[in-house]
Amino acid sequence: MSTVDSELRIGMVGYAFMGAAHSQAWRTVNRVYDLPVRARMARICGRDTPKVAEAADRLGWDSYTTDWRELVNADDIDVVDICTPGDSHAEIAIAALAAGKHVLCEKPLANSVGEAREMVAAAARAQATGIRSMCGFNYRRVPAVTMMRDLVAAGRLGTIRHVRAVYLQDWIVDPQFPLVWRLQKDRAGSGALGDIGAHIIDLTQFVSGQRITGVSAVTETFVKERPLPAGSAGLAATVDGTGDGPHATGQVTVDDAAVFLARLDGGALATYEASRFATGRKNALRVEINGSLGSLVFDLERLNELEFYDATRPGPEQGFSRILVTEGDHPYMSAWWPPGHIIGYEHSFTHEMRDFLAAVATGADPTPSFADALQVQLVLDAVERSAEHGSSWTGVEPALAPVAV
Amino acid sequence: MSTVDSELRIGMVGYAFMGAAHSQAWRTVNRVYDLPVRARMARICGRDTPKVAEAADRLGWDSYTTDWRELVNADDIDVVDICTPGDSHAEIAIAALAAGKHVLCEKPLANSVGEAREMVAAAARAQATGIRSMCGFNYRRVPAVTMMRDLVAAGRLGTIRHVRAVYLQDWIVDPQFPLVWRLQKDRAGSGALGDIGAHIIDLTQFVSGQRITGVSAVTETFVKERPLPAGSAGLAATVDGTGDGPHATGQVTVDDAAVFLARLDGGALATYEASRFATGRKNALRVEINGSLGSLVFDLERLNELEFYDATRPGPEQGFSRILVTEGDHPYMSAWWPPGHIIGYEHSFTHEMRDFLAAVATGADPTPSFADALQVQLVLDAVERSAEHGSSWTGVEPALAPVAV
Amino acid sequence: MSTVDSELRIGMVGYAFMGAAHSQAWRTVNRVYDLPVRARMARICGRDTPKVAEAADRLGWDSYTTDWRELVNADDIDVVDICTPGDSHAEIAIAALAAGKHVLCEKPLANSVGEAREMVAAAARAQATGIRSMCGFNYRRVPAVTMMRDLVAAGRLGTIRHVRAVYLQDWIVDPQFPLVWRLQKDRAGSGALGDIGAHIIDLTQFVSGQRITGVSAVTETFVKERPLPAGSAGLAATVDGTGDGPHATGQVTVDDAAVFLARLDGGALATYEASRFATGRKNALRVEINGSLGSLVFDLERLNELEFYDATRPGPEQGFSRILVTEGDHPYMSAWWPPGHIIGYEHSFTHEMRDFLAAVATGADPTPSFADALQVQLVLDAVERSAEHGSSWTGVEPALAPVAV
Amino acid sequence: MSTVDSELRIGMVGYAFMGAAHSQAWRTVNRVYDLPVRARMARICGRDTPKVAEAADRLGWDSYTTDWRELVNADDIDVVDICTPGDSHAEIAIAALAAGKHVLCEKPLANSVGEAREMVAAAARAQATGIRSMCGFNYRRVPAVTMMRDLVAAGRLGTIRHVRAVYLQDWIVDPQFPLVWRLQKDRAGSGALGDIGAHIIDLTQFVSGQRITGVSAVTETFVKERPLPAGSAGLAATVDGTGDGPHATGQVTVDDAAVFLARLDGGALATYEASRFATGRKNALRVEINGSLGSLVFDLERLNELEFYDATRPGPEQGFSRILVTEGDHPYMSAWWPPGHIIGYEHSFTHEMRDFLAAVATGADPTPSFADALQVQLVLDAVERSAEHGSSWTGVEPALAPVAV
Repeated sequence: MSTVDSELRIGMVGYAFMGAAHSQAWRTVNRVYDLPVRARMARICGRDTPKVAEAADRLGWDSYTTDWRELVNADDIDVVDICTPGDSHAEIAIAALAAGKHVLCEKPLANSVGEAREMVAAAARAQATGIRSMCGFNYRRVPAVTMMRDLVAAGRLGTIRHVRAVYLQDWIVDPQFPLVWRLQKDRAGSGALGDIGAHIIDLTQFVSGQRITGVSAVTETFVKERPLPAGSAGLAATVDGTGDGPHATGQVTVDDAAVFLARLDGGALATYEASRFATGRKNALRVEINGSLGSLVFDLERLNELEFYDATRPGPEQGFSRILVTEGDHPYMSAWWPPGHIIGYEHSFTHEMRDFLAAVATGADPTPSFADALQVQLVLDAVERSAEHGSSWTGVEPALAPVAV
Repeated sequence: MSTVDSELRIGMVGYAFMGAAHSQAWRTVNRVYDLPVRARMARICGRDTPKVAEAADRLGWDSYTTDWRELVNADDIDVVDICTPGDSHAEIAIAALAAGKHVLCEKPLANSVGEAREMVAAAARAQATGIRSMCGFNYRRVPAVTMMRDLVAAGRLGTIRHVRAVYLQDWIVDPQFPLVWRLQKDRAGSGALGDIGAHIIDLTQFVSGQRITGVSAVTETFVKERPLPAGSAGLAATVDGTGDGPHATGQVTVDDAAVFLARLDGGALATYEASRFATGRKNALRVEINGSLGSLVFDLERLNELEFYDATRPGPEQGFSRILVTEGDHPYMSAWWPPGHIIGYEHSFTHEMRDFLAAVATGADPTPSFADALQVQLVLDAVERSAEHGSSWTGVEPALAPVAV
Repeated sequence: MSTVDSELRIGMVGYAFMGAAHSQAWRTVNRVYDLPVRARMARICGRDTPKVAEAADRLGWDSYTTDWRELVNADDIDVVDICTPGDSHAEIAIAALAAGKHVLCEKPLANSVGEAREMVAAAARAQATGIRSMCGFNYRRVPAVTMMRDLVAAGRLGTIRHVRAVYLQDWIVDPQFPLVWRLQKDRAGSGALGDIGAHIIDLTQFVSGQRITGVSAVTETFVKERPLPAGSAGLAATVDGTGDGPHATGQVTVDDAAVFLARLDGGALATYEASRFATGRKNALRVEINGSLGSLVFDLERLNELEFYDATRPGPEQGFSRILVTEGDHPYMSAWWPPGHIIGYEHSFTHEMRDFLAAVATGADPTPSFADALQVQLVLDAVERSAEHGSSWTGVEPALAPVAV
Repeated sequence: MSTVDSELRIGMVGYAFMGAAHSQAWRTVNRVYDLPVRARMARICGRDTPKVAEAADRLGWDSYTTDWRELVNADDIDVVDICTPGDSHAEIAIAALAAGKHVLCEKPLANSVGEAREMVAAAARAQATGIRSMCGFNYRRVPAVTMMRDLVAAGRLGTIRHVRAVYLQDWIVDPQFPLVWRLQKDRAGSGALGDIGAHIIDLTQFVSGQRITGVSAVTETFVKERPLPAGSAGLAATVDGTGDGPHATGQVTVDDAAVFLARLDGGALATYEASRFATGRKNALRVEINGSLGSLVFDLERLNELEFYDATRPGPEQGFSRILVTEGDHPYMSAWWPPGHIIGYEHSFTHEMRDFLAAVATGADPTPSFADALQVQLVLDAVERSAEHGSSWTGVEPALAPVAV
């Protein structure tokens, strides 16, 4: 690597939870992986000057700006990394692609199918000129998840019969938790559904190699009014309470929880649940897949482990094996520590940046593409429509037909 | 107990899996519990003379008969215990009640709502003359399940937000597994839905104290044709294969798997899944309940354990506690072994018989009643109707209105 | 079985915890297993007339006696089952063998090596006349433990390197827990060491097929004086507290905990710990064995499970498999319930009685023999001697040399 | 932080496994924690010019040198971080302290008690002039371990009765694994004992607040001769095999496994095991502590979790609580991700650097001190002496008496 001069200059928009996670990954990726290109943390962008200046210094960016349009058009930026709430993804991404920047955009791709379709079209136009785009479903790069995908792709599960996926959190169980942007439809698009439900939709489709064709859904908002927020950090927040009077409150305009049944195009039955009201579950993304030859189980709270039931082993010895996915021959792990020395949440982003950099450097298209992310958006849309129509079976619209390139 | 002369003479119909389990419970119940009445294993009934004779000897019944009508009308029988497939429950139970016998009937109560309503009516008529009836949802008497119910009833979970329940088995994953009676609609009523789905419907309603008001469902039969069976034992079976030709086959007329969303009358969202195609899952009845103050998790494969998350504890110490439900002050456990010495599946039946005998002896109505079991049947019916109508939201019919006593 | 007239008439001495467990097993064994002989629960023996009469009625014995000498000499008794504290084992067993009764004796075999040697000699004399004897280390018959032994015997672990075994309980952590017989050296022989340590010594030797050759040990009595007891049941007990004065107390004369290092004759290093002061551990017999080709892990609190690490599998798929030992082709399990329907503590006794009855009926010597149990006693003795001599390495005496037949 | 000019210039010796781990921590620490001083990765030192040059570039150090004496005497270095094998710790550390550099030295502190005592003396002399020293037992800074210590210190376990600690790995089970430096006494001092046994000695003493006073030990070298190595990375290595002839081999001069019993000065009994032959155990540092009021369990392979049994809770609700130690109010966690987003092995080093920097900046002495590390060395020494003398009880020498300052 020391002989490589090539460098990709990153410009990142956003500096909150996702911005910090991406920064840690950009800072680390070339320190642990041998790559043909090196990421330079060139510029960070945010609307508030003191805050973005502080973030640049703390997170280690060379410079900062408060104008994302300046960033996406800057000559000294090669990649735009979008870590903002969903309502600004489309505008920033389309502008960056038009300006000839490679784009990495956080999930969910957009707040609506319409926006997502426009982004896919923009990505396709840019792709024709060698510009790359990718949506950041980082959990695909958890080594145990990648290994799940590999085992399924190798036919080790046989015909898949069942998928069951939950993503459970509990950070808004308290009705006094404030109305942060993630609880506002105009900013976040949807609630648990788009924020964490999108992850399990993408992950299960990625792992199974199958697409959801239809859904039956119910969504619910348990707490419909909440105090307005003062500040937030990560997923934590404080209430805006000055003076003696009652707190100002506002309407929660997104779902607190979404549950749905689905069919996959390979014949599997699936159940999905995304909730921020599952007391005691902090980040419980759990997926189980049952096939005719075996089963796989993953739990994000124990992300270094994968359970594999291989029904082709001798009968009396069959059981769910707890594989500690920390060996050098496990996906992404050769760069890290000796076996059994576990990695954490943030490493999924380092792996994502590794694959993104490698793709850009070699002229390949990274995945998941914007089109892949549109497909997730179409499932989210079908879920919302089913929920609005008495849970009736609702087909997922095809992604490709309406895409004008 | 040695000074008690009173005895209830049991007549049991059926001697297969359930018959063996009930026999073990009748044989044991008075050996471990002090009860005002003693069960006498008086007579067993089955259609095949050599088999029922052998069963009587092996299982320890005083006598046998091949005529259930003789049994239910016999003067020396006080209780009729019905362990047959669902298609004969209604006829036997109604006749037994009419003959003044207390009735314990295995679940599901019947193969149809119509039959179940007739049974409820018969039970109500009998109850007026002091005759007791009970449906055998034995998992209510797993100590950890009873403890769940007690914790919920004491308000320890606060407002219940989520119920998620699965009952997963894998004994028919092999497409060559034969077409046993449990796979035939005329005998079994339904497939995974009525056999194991009924258990999680009853268990979650029992524990939560709430009733399912509506559902959205999908059912599936993955393997639609199977070889005819030669013999079976428990859930195992062999294929009828004589000669060199291909096996005779028949149509599978029940569901292999059923998934559904539900709402409970206390406001909770719920998901349910019953499947016999979950490779590696042998008897995985798993229930999680999330409330505003805490959560509970139960797994029948580890039935001596209950996980309890108490959100009222100091924040940094909150976690799911694995309670080993084997202490003398846990439900039903004072009769068994020292702490940590676990019990098994069959003990749930011993507990069931204990409560049934105690109720009969003291003139109380045991639970779950036939009316409780009808309510489960109404949910099963709603599931089937929703599945037939594009998963559209389907209300659960009220149990009481149409019941003519 | 219905055509078999042969019957073995059991006479059991003792009716407390072990007596109840053995009764449940005698009552059940012929109901679930096809055996060439049937056990008849003929007579129970205890010193207190009202209590033994009540026990006979409750536990289901045909008759009772208060004189064990009468029992062991009775013409209508074929088998003597000894469930008393260890101080009476030798006298009863030797008398019973001399009277031509088959003997099943609870563990530990005796309270001293001297007694155990005499018992072995008596068993050898009796064996020459066709009389069988067995020591009741029931955990050998937990299906998962039997399966461990089978896997080791089949060479699946390769060369065994490590054994680590603990048996942890917590029922005397409270210093006010009374001075029951298990805490008195003259009755119990030793404390945690002989009561539960004996189990892990036997179990690890049984599973590994290797014998302990030497030890280095420490024992400890944390609470040296306790109130005198009023009554007890199972492992629970109450303090004798009448009047306002302080409770009468007495000296604890056994160990509360024993820890020791050991070498096995096949080259393995081993660690052992037996304690009644492990807060939160109720019946935590846990054994792990590491070999050059794999490892096995067992936990009595989850006795239906066995963890097996098979290092001959493809590297990236290696992991500890949780085998649910409930299949029909697992040891002892064909008689019980369908897969995943778990069994409990008491079933180990039913399996023990099965093998004992089968051995007696077929003229075979059941295991573990008194000689096997003497070897455990010799280990216990070496542990005590090492602990008394500054933990210095202490060889286990050979069992056979001094045995006079 | 952006307003702070103060900077500590780090010079690190070594660039293998530990060097990479420390680099990741130095690179990250100021990005996630607000500290009064910023670490500058100034210079890295190694003997091989191309390799150290490559390491400097890859790991992100400003410059490199091949002469540690130059480094420790350089004017532009404030801190010397020693990541070499144990045989060079004393010489480097003493020279660095003499040159007025703050020193962070990897564990074990030295290869002998004599060296360790000299280092303690040097640290004491330096401390008098405001120079700080610390030994890098990084696992103290795993949040769950710090929380264990806090709970014990708060009296939540009551009187500690039992400590059981194992550190199990399996990377040299294969007899063809080569003779790397960690298997050579002159480089490593000892084998599993000093490498991983030292961790559990320090961790249990840190958590319990008690010191080991005596031990009884056995050590073993299962494979006494191994092929010579060609290269290594992390704990992996390759055999030097050129040509067709047999590999050159060499003697293993350290222990493969060490087991010992111990007493702690607060009255607890303890067992310890360190092994590199525990097939299937990759990095299984597991510690359980039982006290009169509760118990704690930690497993490094699931380092984000802590199990806590609180015996002061209502009896029927007692159980081991799985605490996910990822909340903002858990030790060190406020800087990281939202609850449930787990951290990994490397974070323990970031926490270590945080506390080291804070101590240096504020003029406090960081812990563990060299004296603390000497005490661990004295335990290691007692273990070796006991093992050489028939496992006889061997007191741990006092640390302070012979220390000449």
